[in-house]
Amino acid sequence: MSEQLRQRLFAELDSLRLIDPHSHIEPKTAASTTLADILGYHYYTELCHSAGMPRAQIEEPELDPREKVRRLVARIEPLRNTVQYSWLLELARTFFGFPADEQLTPANWESLYDAAAKKMAEPNWEQQVLDRTKLDAVFLTNNFDDPLTGFDTKRYVPCLRTDDLVFHLAKPEVRQRLEQATNTSIDSIAALRGAIGTLFRHFRGKGARACAISLPPSFAPHPCSAPSADSALAAVLRSPANKPAADTLANFVFWTLAEFCAEYKLPFDLMIGVNRAVYRGGVYQGQDLYDSRVSLIQYAELFNAFPHVVFPVSVLASVTNQELVSYAWIFPNVVTNGHWWYSNTPAYIEHDAAARLEAVPQSKQIGYYSDAYKLEFCLPKFAMYKRILAKLLAERFVLDRGWSEQQALDLGRRVLRGNVEEVFNIRCA
Amino acid sequence: MSEQLRQRLFAELDSLRLIDPHSHIEPKTAASTTLADILGYHYYTELCHSAGMPRAQIEEPELDPREKVRRLVARIEPLRNTVQYSWLLELARTFFGFPADEQLTPANWESLYDAAAKKMAEPNWEQQVLDRTKLDAVFLTNNFDDPLTGFDTKRYVPCLRTDDLVFHLAKPEVRQRLEQATNTSIDSIAALRGAIGTLFRHFRGKGARACAISLPPSFAPHPCSAPSADSALAAVLRSPANKPAADTLANFVFWTLAEFCAEYKLPFDLMIGVNRAVYRGGVYQGQDLYDSRVSLIQYAELFNAFPHVVFPVSVLASVTNQELVSYAWIFPNVVTNGHWWYSNTPAYIEHDAAARLEAVPQSKQIGYYSDAYKLEFCLPKFAMYKRILAKLLAERFVLDRGWSEQQALDLGRRVLRGNVEEVFNIRCA
Amino acid sequence: MSEQLRQRLFAELDSLRLIDPHSHIEPKTAASTTLADILGYHYYTELCHSAGMPRAQIEEPELDPREKVRRLVARIEPLRNTVQYSWLLELARTFFGFPADEQLTPANWESLYDAAAKKMAEPNWEQQVLDRTKLDAVFLTNNFDDPLTGFDTKRYVPCLRTDDLVFHLAKPEVRQRLEQATNTSIDSIAALRGAIGTLFRHFRGKGARACAISLPPSFAPHPCSAPSADSALAAVLRSPANKPAADTLANFVFWTLAEFCAEYKLPFDLMIGVNRAVYRGGVYQGQDLYDSRVSLIQYAELFNAFPHVVFPVSVLASVTNQELVSYAWIFPNVVTNGHWWYSNTPAYIEHDAAARLEAVPQSKQIGYYSDAYKLEFCLPKFAMYKRILAKLLAERFVLDRGWSEQQALDLGRRVLRGNVEEVFNIRCA
Repeated sequence: MSEQLRQRLFAELDSLRLIDPHSHIEPKTAASTTLADILGYHYYTELCHSAGMPRAQIEEPELDPREKVRRLVARIEPLRNTVQYSWLLELARTFFGFPADEQLTPANWESLYDAAAKKMAEPNWEQQVLDRTKLDAVFLTNNFDDPLTGFDTKRYVPCLRTDDLVFHLAKPEVRQRLEQATNTSIDSIAALRGAIGTLFRHFRGKGARACAISLPPSFAPHPCSAPSADSALAAVLRSPANKPAADTLANFVFWTLAEFCAEYKLPFDLMIGVNRAVYRGGVYQGQDLYDSRVSLIQYAELFNAFPHVVFPVSVLASVTNQELVSYAWIFPNVVTNGHWWYSNTPAYIEHDAAARLEAVPQSKQIGYYSDAYKLEFCLPKFAMYKRILAKLLAERFVLDRGWSEQQALDLGRRVLRGNVEEVFNIRCA
Repeated sequence: MSEQLRQRLFAELDSLRLIDPHSHIEPKTAASTTLADILGYHYYTELCHSAGMPRAQIEEPELDPREKVRRLVARIEPLRNTVQYSWLLELARTFFGFPADEQLTPANWESLYDAAAKKMAEPNWEQQVLDRTKLDAVFLTNNFDDPLTGFDTKRYVPCLRTDDLVFHLAKPEVRQRLEQATNTSIDSIAALRGAIGTLFRHFRGKGARACAISLPPSFAPHPCSAPSADSALAAVLRSPANKPAADTLANFVFWTLAEFCAEYKLPFDLMIGVNRAVYRGGVYQGQDLYDSRVSLIQYAELFNAFPHVVFPVSVLASVTNQELVSYAWIFPNVVTNGHWWYSNTPAYIEHDAAARLEAVPQSKQIGYYSDAYKLEFCLPKFAMYKRILAKLLAERFVLDRGWSEQQALDLGRRVLRGNVEEVFNIRCA
Repeated sequence: MSEQLRQRLFAELDSLRLIDPHSHIEPKTAASTTLADILGYHYYTELCHSAGMPRAQIEEPELDPREKVRRLVARIEPLRNTVQYSWLLELARTFFGFPADEQLTPANWESLYDAAAKKMAEPNWEQQVLDRTKLDAVFLTNNFDDPLTGFDTKRYVPCLRTDDLVFHLAKPEVRQRLEQATNTSIDSIAALRGAIGTLFRHFRGKGARACAISLPPSFAPHPCSAPSADSALAAVLRSPANKPAADTLANFVFWTLAEFCAEYKLPFDLMIGVNRAVYRGGVYQGQDLYDSRVSLIQYAELFNAFPHVVFPVSVLASVTNQELVSYAWIFPNVVTNGHWWYSNTPAYIEHDAAARLEAVPQSKQIGYYSDAYKLEFCLPKFAMYKRILAKLLAERFVLDRGWSEQQALDLGRRVLRGNVEEVFNIRCA
């Protein structure tokens, strides 16, 4: 009975049209052109590498897409248990008619490759994917100097990604990009603040719906006085390798971003906990890990200082999820946001979402985002989440707490779609 | 079948008479007088505030109870998913006949308010609640200078709460309270120790069954030499803001409390992990959060030093629960105690209790306490725990391990009631 | 249906022949001679002690085995809920015909004692246990100066345990053991390195399949220059109590072990997170606990520096398991290894194994090891794991992800047996 209940709830949730509140989709090449775009997703390259495939085989320069797929499929057998591989099969079945009972093998990959290439070459492929996935809009991850032109910003919603501004402004090339993007000479803190303001005006004018950043576990933001920010800027201008000055500058820029989020009424997505380039021999985008010893107490001053900025917070490790639940339960401006990266697997989603659903106000939970680089992945990733959500609603609300199915579905719809609209102030037809 | 088994086990557990080993009940006003006492519980005020209700609306001075309830109900819709809201509905249904299929809304709150007021005005309301909840006794949280008079200390069992003594003795007003309560001038460490001894004599004479304290994640107790304690006391007498001296004094007082617990054979409840006033703009009692990076290794010296003091330990974050399990499995004087505050929600209780039930000797587990401020909350909070306990016993003992229902119930009764009697040396009819 | 599926999967997994990749079995006395060998396992002594039994009663010198068992059984009632007690009953039922519905009590222990003694006295008792457990081989934990003679190293596979070398080389007695074992005077870093090389040659010659070590939460290995290692060695030779020098030396030895693991192609088992002698009044082997605030980031440099050494990693606390999953998903040379000690209980195994099974390549997971001191424990400990594995495969793969039972069993067999063969390069008939 519980099984059938789950199925019914899933079917209802699966009929919902979606807004994906965080992705890395490139709006001008949102959909894939060959299966290499699919198998080139870092989950497959890093897992194949982890299972023994040399990086040089994966990242050989000028590698033909077909050959790249051939090589990866030859090494994919160890991944069959992973949920990431299940995304691949679900995607292949749904979009390209891959048989339901087959694994991807050296014997059958080529027909899938050809079937995919044929579909992807259809002129409305992108629209087909959007329709099949029931996607109304997808949030982007835009560099601060992105002109945001040449695409429909209602469908592909700009977001100002600020990692470079905060953590790499000591690098001359980043400052140069900022100067060019804002037509400003970054020679003082006032000029820097002005340039950041220019970015916000630009992004807001293009319909941006969030400012976003990923943060290392060591980061603990605090306000920074103008004189010390000035000294820090001067110091990094003299020496980009001055680490204490770069840290002070990072703090200043971060705090300034929060100020502009307040001014421009933009939610500030915090993605907390990643250490970059931990595995130096890893494949592209497969080098980052983390130290789970991080606490949201590091952000307490920020949450206190900006009561009118909404902070949708993602945490990298499931052990931080209870803090996220508690901080969202207490701070009006903290919202739980999706299941990020290493926590985006069923066992952790289930544990983490269960805790959120029962202790955070239902208006303050963004259930899921795809984090996808290619549009085809939104479907299987959201499907994974919806199945878990249906399971939690069935077991923990309908059965354990005596809710009606209708009540359970209302909660499910809210975390899947309604809150995305409310929190990011976005409406789609 | 598993569902019916859970129901049978719950029914048996639910028939048990209870002793609640930790609450904040005021013994002279144990039960509520209006629904504002119920909805004024910090869980509702803080969650409504978190969901957008301004603090000023909640905490307006001289606010009429009926108006307070009206305002909170107007903002309570976002809380419907929370387990805290489910306590409210269960309480309203059980005690005040609130309809089983209704939500609390602006349309129906007033009839509930009136029904509750009528019941609460009945002369034996408190006894009705105790009877319906099957409560034999409830532990209190008494300030160190509480005279402990004017109530039945068999029913409302005194506990010496020591946060002020340990963490705020540098404040002149706390010292003054201590001097008055003990008729002692706190001008030396010897005098301080004497005063603390006087408190223990007083509390023991009134039937106290525990000494208790809540502790911040940074606290790591260690013995403190008399000379350094003397210097620290002298320093805070000169300057209450002397933080290092206050910390030394805190350590001295804490260690002294443990010594008196040994002498008076009182269990010392440690509630580990809370940071006070993290959200400064929060409602009353809705400002505290935590840093989950805490370890029981911080208490290893204490547990070693006082083998004859029983330490019922509560941890604030579920990520500390495994340490609690392991320390209770190794240290004879460490006992697991309830599911505290931010871990008092079903997903965390289920995970944490499962680990305790299978690895800590059954004689060393206090299953649950209400932590309630008003008597009416004991019923729905204990009911939540009993449902989870029934689920765990059904699934993890009867089904997974082949236990008989009788064996499972014996374990359940022991953690729910028997161990409270044993650990706190209390017997009720 | 889920119940029956679990049963079917368990039956298949249970028919598998096993290699136990980590134990503390003494190969010349692998099986027990009396029930005191069974009840003397630290799990029972420490849990009985934790539940109130004085250490002196347990560890009385020259205690007769029968009397020891009598005393422990007299205090074992509080342990009935623990999974460790369930191992005892399963073992007693399987090997000694203990009745299925009985508890071990003062009334019946003696007949069990006698039945066990009789069985254990049979000349092929050890072989009976191996056969009944379907054990092809068992990995040992050998001191570095073990001659590794007098037993079948195909059945009892040597492993070089290196805690003493790394953490206690400052002690004269440990250096003396090393000097004797290698016929080397440890008067320089070059000599020390040479001696360690000699150990590896010896162990490899005897068929060792792993180097292993347990590590405290504070350890964070890094390379150590020869001059600073030389100074450190000289310093500890002068003063064994020189803690900084001992720490430097520990680092040097640890790094050197990794270098030899590379040279000899031996996996290096890391068992991360234990603090020794936390409870100083505890029974033998029942004094160790931990600080769960540890991160695999502490090992990032090691994993980067030795890409050709396989590191089967065990973590002591379940809160570290997600890091282990993530590091094994990214680093080719990190393999998940079993469920260690305080995490070797069903609730934690279930949570931790679920996360591994869905995110770590299936070729990189060692499902379980017994960690046993006596051969009889392999059966109930592996049985516990197999039941949980069957549950996870049934619920999370067959039901949730639509796998066939055959696919699920293939995954189960791989983590239970196949990967042990692959990772440790061992084949048994």
